[in-house]
Amino acid sequence: MISRVLAADLREHVGEHVMIAGWLHRRRQLKSVTFLVIRDRSGLAQVVLPDVAGPISEETVVRVTGTVTASARAPGGAEITDPAVTVLSAPTAPPPFDLFRPVVTAGLPAILDGAPATLRHPMLRAGFDIAAASVAGFRAALDGLDFTEIHTPKIVGAATESGANVFGLDYFGRPAYLAQSPQFYKQAMVGVFERVYEVGPVFRAEPHDTARHLAQYTSLDAELGFITDHRDVMAVLRDTIAGMAAAVAGRAGGALDRLGVTPPAVPPRFPEIHITDAQRLIAEHAGWDPRGEPDLSPADERWIGDWARREHGADFVFVTGYPMAKRPFYTHPEPGRPGYSNSFDLIFRGLELVTGGQRLHRHADYLAALAERGEDPGPYAGYLQVFEHGMPPHGGFAIGLERWTARLTGAANVRQVTLFPRDLHRLSP
Amino acid sequence: MISRVLAADLREHVGEHVMIAGWLHRRRQLKSVTFLVIRDRSGLAQVVLPDVAGPISEETVVRVTGTVTASARAPGGAEITDPAVTVLSAPTAPPPFDLFRPVVTAGLPAILDGAPATLRHPMLRAGFDIAAASVAGFRAALDGLDFTEIHTPKIVGAATESGANVFGLDYFGRPAYLAQSPQFYKQAMVGVFERVYEVGPVFRAEPHDTARHLAQYTSLDAELGFITDHRDVMAVLRDTIAGMAAAVAGRAGGALDRLGVTPPAVPPRFPEIHITDAQRLIAEHAGWDPRGEPDLSPADERWIGDWARREHGADFVFVTGYPMAKRPFYTHPEPGRPGYSNSFDLIFRGLELVTGGQRLHRHADYLAALAERGEDPGPYAGYLQVFEHGMPPHGGFAIGLERWTARLTGAANVRQVTLFPRDLHRLSP
Repeated sequence: MISRVLAADLREHVGEHVMIAGWLHRRRQLKSVTFLVIRDRSGLAQVVLPDVAGPISEETVVRVTGTVTASARAPGGAEITDPAVTVLSAPTAPPPFDLFRPVVTAGLPAILDGAPATLRHPMLRAGFDIAAASVAGFRAALDGLDFTEIHTPKIVGAATESGANVFGLDYFGRPAYLAQSPQFYKQAMVGVFERVYEVGPVFRAEPHDTARHLAQYTSLDAELGFITDHRDVMAVLRDTIAGMAAAVAGRAGGALDRLGVTPPAVPPRFPEIHITDAQRLIAEHAGWDPRGEPDLSPADERWIGDWARREHGADFVFVTGYPMAKRPFYTHPEPGRPGYSNSFDLIFRGLELVTGGQRLHRHADYLAALAERGEDPGPYAGYLQVFEHGMPPHGGFAIGLERWTARLTGAANVRQVTLFPRDLHRLSP
Repeated sequence: MISRVLAADLREHVGEHVMIAGWLHRRRQLKSVTFLVIRDRSGLAQVVLPDVAGPISEETVVRVTGTVTASARAPGGAEITDPAVTVLSAPTAPPPFDLFRPVVTAGLPAILDGAPATLRHPMLRAGFDIAAASVAGFRAALDGLDFTEIHTPKIVGAATESGANVFGLDYFGRPAYLAQSPQFYKQAMVGVFERVYEVGPVFRAEPHDTARHLAQYTSLDAELGFITDHRDVMAVLRDTIAGMAAAVAGRAGGALDRLGVTPPAVPPRFPEIHITDAQRLIAEHAGWDPRGEPDLSPADERWIGDWARREHGADFVFVTGYPMAKRPFYTHPEPGRPGYSNSFDLIFRGLELVTGGQRLHRHADYLAALAERGEDPGPYAGYLQVFEHGMPPHGGFAIGLERWTARLTGAANVRQVTLFPRDLHRLSP
C-alpha cells in the first residue's frame, strides 16, 4: 500500500499518485462535478470527482488515492484528481452542528455536551493546539534552567491549603482528599532537586458557577531553592512565560492564524508595582478607592492591566507585596514592612494569571505562622516535617493552563479551552 | 554578591573566588583540619577549613565563598580553600539515617515515611532523575511523530474500565469516580488530533498489597488513528521506548552511573510472539503447561523474557493476540482467529510493562461487544457517543512510569521509584 500524505503536504507531491486519509469535512455537489474536502490533522485537502458522488455524509472517515494536481482554487494550491474513495467508517449520527461552517454559532453547552465531535471544528480545536504548545514551552524553559520534573500524589490525607473547597473521597475506608495543589510536594522536592516543576491536575470543589472557575484544572507548578527573595522567582517566571509564548508562536502558528490572535510580546522585564502603590494609583485615577483592601478586585486588576499597557506597553504586570492576611500561612513576610509579604500575582491583560512568592523555610517560622493564625499544627505534621531537615530559602509559582490559554485566545469562558471541563453542574462527557 | 557556581562545575573555576551553596552532606573532623562536603543539585564539593569548625550538623543549608583549588583528593578534582561559611538554615532534627553513607541499609517503610529527607540520598534520588528523563523522552519521541499532548478529566461520572477497583467521591452531592485511565478521552481525541498522548495520574483502588500495585501511578498514554492494525501501534511503541532509553542515557547519565545500571539496548524491531505460540513454547520447555489459560502468569512472563534474551538478545518482547475474554470490551478482535484479539503486552526483562492494542472503531461493533458480554450500554452512553461521528481504525498503549523505572533500575519494589506512593496502607506523607 502506498504511504499516506498529509493534506498540508499535498503541494509537494504534484504529479504523484498518493493516498490521503481523514474525515469528509465538506461535500459540495455541482452539476457535473463533486468536491470532497477531506480534513486530517494537518488541514484540508480537496478531492475532485468527475461526476455525481454516491451518498456519503460529512464526518465519514475515508481513504482517498489519486493524482495530485496543482490548482489555484484548492486549499493549499493542490487537489486530488482521478480519485478512488474508500470508506473506512461511517458516522451513525450527524454532529451537533455543521463542522464545515467557518464560524461556530452554537452555544457553549452544545459545544461541551458534544465535545468529542464539536472539538473537531478547526476553530474549536485551535485552543487545544495552543495549550499543548504552551505546556511544551513551559517545560522547555524550565528544563533549560536545570529544573527536574516531578509527579506527585493527587490523593492526600490532609487538606493543606484550606479545609473548604476540597473534594473528599473514601480511601479504603479512610477519609482522604483530592489535592488542591502540589504545594507541599514541590516544596519538599526542593530539598532533593533544588528546582522542580510539575504539570498536573488540581482539584477545587468550587461552589462558584463563574466563567473562570473549574473543579479540575491543569496547574503548571514550579518551585526553586537558593533564592534571595521573591524577585528571583519572578525572574524565572518571566523566562517561563517567554518560553511559553515562543513555543505557541513556533508550534501552534496555524492555530493562532485560525483564531486571528497574536501571542503577547514578552519584554526582558515585566513592570512591577507594589499593591499599596497600585491601590494608590487606582484611588487617584480610577474613580474608586481600594486602599486598605487586602487584595485587588477584578476591576482593580483590569485597571492595573490597562495602566501597564498604557505606561509600559506591556501585556504583563507583576503586583507584589500582597498583605499577609490574604496569603497562605507559608508565605514569607516582606522584610521591614509588617503585614505585607514577599508574594506576587502576575496580571496578564488585566486578569490574574499566576500566583507566587517566597515561602517560609525555617521550621520555627512555620510553627510561629500557624500559631499567629490560631491554627493547630497537628494536621500539618507531614508538611512541617520537611522543614526539620534544613531547607534553603525558596519560592515558586503556579500558572493555570486554562486561564493562560483563555486569555491568549480571547475566550470569554475558560471552559472553551478546557478539555471536557468539570464544574458545579458538569461531570460529563 | 558573586553568583553561584555548582559543585559539578568547580573544576572549571580553579584559581577563582566563587560561591557555592547546598546542604552539608558530610563533616569530617581531622586533628587540625575540617572537611565539609557540600551537596547541591549537581553533586558534591569539598571545602577545607584550616582548623576545627564550630558546631554544624549535617543537612545544614550553607553558602560558602572561597578559592577554588585543584586537588586530586577532592571529588571532581577541585576543592574550596580559605572558605567563609554562612548558615542559611539549620535542621531541627536529624534525618532518619545518615545521608552521607554510600549504601542505604534502611528498610522501605523508613525510607518512605521520611521521604522529604531520605530522597536526598544520591542513591535514592537517582530513580527520580531517571523517571524525569524517561518522561521527557516519551514526549520527545511522540512530538517527533506529530502527536498532540492532552490533559483530560480525572473525575468521571461513570467507571468505564470496570466497576471494581475504582475510588468513589462526593461530587457536589453526586457520586463520581477517579479515572482509572484516560482511555475514553484519548480515543475521543483521536477524532480531533488523530494522534494524542497524555502523561498523568491514574487511580486504582487496588486491594492487593504487592510489590507492583499502587493506588495512584503515572500513566504514559498514547493513542493514534489511521492504523492498519495493532502492529502500527507496536511500531510507535518501539520508537517511544527507544526515545525513553535515549533520554535516560542522555539526561540521567549520572544517576545511571550512581546505580550502576545500563539502559536497555533497543533493537530496531522487538521480537514478537503470539500468546498461543508462547504458551506452546512454555509447555514444551518450561516444565509447566499454560496452554488454554487466557493470560500469561508472572512466571510465564519471566520465562518469555528469558527466551527473548536467549533467542533474540532482546530485553523486550511483544506478546500478541491475547484472548478477547481477558481484554476490555473495546478491544479489536483478531481477524480470522475467533476468540483472540489484536492486542499486545510488551514484556520488559520478564515483566509486563505496557498493554496496548487496536480498538473497535465502529459504533455498531461497540454495541455488539457490550451485548455479547451481557453489559447494559446505558453507563457507556458518553463513551459510545464518540463512535457515532466517524472514527478511524485506531489503537494505543499505556506505559506505567513507575514499573518502567523500577525495571530499569532493578528496584525490587515499585514504591522505591514512586514519589510519595499511595497504596492500601499508605496515604502520607
